Amino acid sequence: MSFSNRFENGIVILGAGNVATHLSLALKKANISIKCVYSKTIAPAKELAHKVDAHYTNEIEHIPVEADLYIIAVKDDVITSIVDNLDMEYGIVVHTAGSVPMDVFQKKFSNYGVFYPLQTFSKKRDLDFNSVPICIEANSEQLERILIRLAKKLTETVELVDSEQRKVLHLAAVFACNFSNHMYAAASEIINNSGISFDLLKPLIKETVKKAIDNDPVKAQTGPAVRNDQEVISKHLEMLKDHPQFEKTYRFVSESIYQLKQEKEN
Amino acid sequence: MSFSNRFENGIVILGAGNVATHLSLALKKANISIKCVYSKTIAPAKELAHKVDAHYTNEIEHIPVEADLYIIAVKDDVITSIVDNLDMEYGIVVHTAGSVPMDVFQKKFSNYGVFYPLQTFSKKRDLDFNSVPICIEANSEQLERILIRLAKKLTETVELVDSEQRKVLHLAAVFACNFSNHMYAAASEIINNSGISFDLLKPLIKETVKKAIDNDPVKAQTGPAVRNDQEVISKHLEMLKDHPQFEKTYRFVSESIYQLKQEKEN
Repeated sequence: MSFSNRFENGIVILGAGNVATHLSLALKKANISIKCVYSKTIAPAKELAHKVDAHYTNEIEHIPVEADLYIIAVKDDVITSIVDNLDMEYGIVVHTAGSVPMDVFQKKFSNYGVFYPLQTFSKKRDLDFNSVPICIEANSEQLERILIRLAKKLTETVELVDSEQRKVLHLAAVFACNFSNHMYAAASEIINNSGISFDLLKPLIKETVKKAIDNDPVKAQTGPAVRNDQEVISKHLEMLKDHPQFEKTYRFVSESIYQLKQEKEN
Repeated sequence: MSFSNRFENGIVILGAGNVATHLSLALKKANISIKCVYSKTIAPAKELAHKVDAHYTNEIEHIPVEADLYIIAVKDDVITSIVDNLDMEYGIVVHTAGSVPMDVFQKKFSNYGVFYPLQTFSKKRDLDFNSVPICIEANSEQLERILIRLAKKLTETVELVDSEQRKVLHLAAVFACNFSNHMYAAASEIINNSGISFDLLKPLIKETVKKAIDNDPVKAQTGPAVRNDQEVISKHLEMLKDHPQFEKTYRFVSESIYQLKQEKEN
């Protein structure tokens, strides 16, 4: 195979958003050189390129064709058009998306895979990349080994995850991350109207997460719903009558909690 | 007034469950002596009494009548019957419940209040009580000051919270604690059937919570629902067709996320 094991010919980053930024910084920290940053808008490309001592471009045909690895870290729905327009000589190409299957590369490239860092990234927040799990998939065992080796330079946790599993992981992440955050948001909205500070809930939130992580969240479930305490539930629904969407959420999450408990008992 | 400021005549703890245990241990640590632990079952009363060098009883009429403070830390629906059967000479009486109004004491006692530690407690888990907010309510300003002074010996965060606010706080806590935990539980159930470890999601969960706590959870919202990404949402609902309760939860939480976003924009 013609691709290099050590990425001496450099890496191209396609994208300059949250994932692209944190991944590039982690690569730089691991002394892996980034050759070029591409973004369809020039300003973020320049900004990221500056941080990692790379060239930059906003024209996809100006991307160097002789790099060892092309990492596509853009929004899911842009990946296909990037794949259509990207040219290279011999490199490996991967994307970083949770919900896009690996075979998006199949027609066009020979050496391809997925390099999915399972984390919520913001440009503005520092993050210890060392604790971010990277999920790897590749179209050959040899490439799999190469991507695993690269990932291990960036983080402690590297897992082989196929496209089907990655879809499940992404769905689970929506519950664990987006939906749990909405529960905090709802709590914050409910509380802000009553003159109490959301800060008061923060120790409770921290301890709840610790419990769920140290034990099993199914076993750690507490509250009126799991006790099927209809008296408290009715009072709460009554209190939410001016917040129809929170009322609905309260009703269905409570039902879901109780159903899961019953399933587990049977 | 006849009640003592310094609790030289000791404190009686009614209850021997999670809240009673952690609160008693915190009092002991602050060198405040516990005179007696009461529980309707003798074994937990004995166990807790042993930990805090107190007497114990499972007969409510054997509780000493000359203590300075009686802390009722039992399940919400048992508080009324405890109040009916409790006798004392001059003490203060408080309960520790989030959703029970202070006036449960009004008919019978002269000096009463609420001493509500806002946290999720488990006997088996150690906890730094110093970071637990205590919410105080009292039927006089003098008693308010006394309870605040006591609470400040146990923790850094002490707030005056009236019965109406405490109800709201309890409702918000159901979202922030019980409902967010169910989102982790759902994620864990979804993932466990696919051969991937829930551990892989833990760094994401931790960072999501940090983001929500450091910023505003409403602003920190990410994911397909807030983007109104119907393509991803439909795929996820399709994947959940064998989990009707998670499917319903997914649908309503997603709607709630999008509605909150629209409210905030208007």
